[in-house]
Amino acid sequence: RTLNEVLFFPSDMACVEHIFTPTTTHSCFCPLPHGVETSFSRLLRHILSASSSLDLCIFSFSNMDLCRAVLLLHSKGVTVRVVSDKNYSAITGSQIGVLRKAGICVRCDVVSVCMHHKFAVVDSRLLITGSLNWTLTAVQSNAENVLLTEEPDLVQPFIKEFHRLWVLNDPT
Amino acid sequence: RTLNEVLFFPSDMACVEHIFTPTTTHSCFCPLPHGVETSFSRLLRHILSASSSLDLCIFSFSNMDLCRAVLLLHSKGVTVRVVSDKNYSAITGSQIGVLRKAGICVRCDVVSVCMHHKFAVVDSRLLITGSLNWTLTAVQSNAENVLLTEEPDLVQPFIKEFHRLWVLNDPT
Ligand SMILES: [Zn+2]
Ligand SMILES: [Zn+2]
Repeated sequence: RTLNEVLFFPSDMACVEHIFTPTTTHSCFCPLPHGVETSFSRLLRHILSASSSLDLCIFSFSNMDLCRAVLLLHSKGVTVRVVSDKNYSAITGSQIGVLRKAGICVRCDVVSVCMHHKFAVVDSRLLITGSLNWTLTAVQSNAENVLLTEEPDLVQPFIKEFHRLWVLNDPT
Repeated sequence: RTLNEVLFFPSDMACVEHIFTPTTTHSCFCPLPHGVETSFSRLLRHILSASSSLDLCIFSFSNMDLCRAVLLLHSKGVTVRVVSDKNYSAITGSQIGVLRKAGICVRCDVVSVCMHHKFAVVDSRLLITGSLNWTLTAVQSNAENVLLTEEPDLVQPFIKEFHRLWVLNDPT
């Protein structure tokens, strides 16, 4: 069955440590609620489901948990490619520099006035798209949506658009 | 067959006069290209396909052509409801005041830090969602996406979210 799911934000606050370290036997002692599934934990799970590739096209990326998820995928050998906005990526708190330092290929859109997309494609199969920037404010405070679908008629155009932007912004 | 379509922006520039006045026998003499289908003309057509209702949840709304489309639907008796961001709707160029003056019900989100959604539901059937704000810059200059779908698993959650925000922001 084709996955179709919608997540709304702001997300309830809950600990997401177990999503990163599912096999640990330690309990987490942070002050957040534990064992609660939220919009944000579901988003993280879908991103972390990548086994071969993650193509990410994102205007602003400052959320530490989402950064940790992308770094984890990269460390596991998943091919991560990121297209981001040239202006936003220079802003304090942006994690784009952290991704670059970890060896992830990031290209900044120098053609558009603003690279305003917020989508990811997991394993060329699952599209994650919506209004949500990858920031803490967006996740915790704003009215936002994220749509997840495996419908090929919706996924394929985004794969094509990612490829177009990737090639267009080749710095070489 | 269920409609699934994706539009990317910036859109090519072309005259959209014929979309508003399809029965006119006059030629348009504006300097823009004519007879060209673009991402923006397709978006307008889908919005104007509404025959009973348009529920719109939009952060920023300053685009004159999109405003014209919403006013046209309202004048034809389509039930238009708008939820917008309280701060953005006060900004110069916002068409929210124009909608209100025309008698369209607009509610501003006073709960969220930022009402960042950009979606519309046409006739409780077609979902229009993505990164695109309803501004001229977004349409003509930014890298943006709009996803259109009639898939019930995707449309229904947005109908529910619109209803939630509509009730939540009831000023009475
Ligand atoms: Zn914890
Ligand atoms: Zn014209």
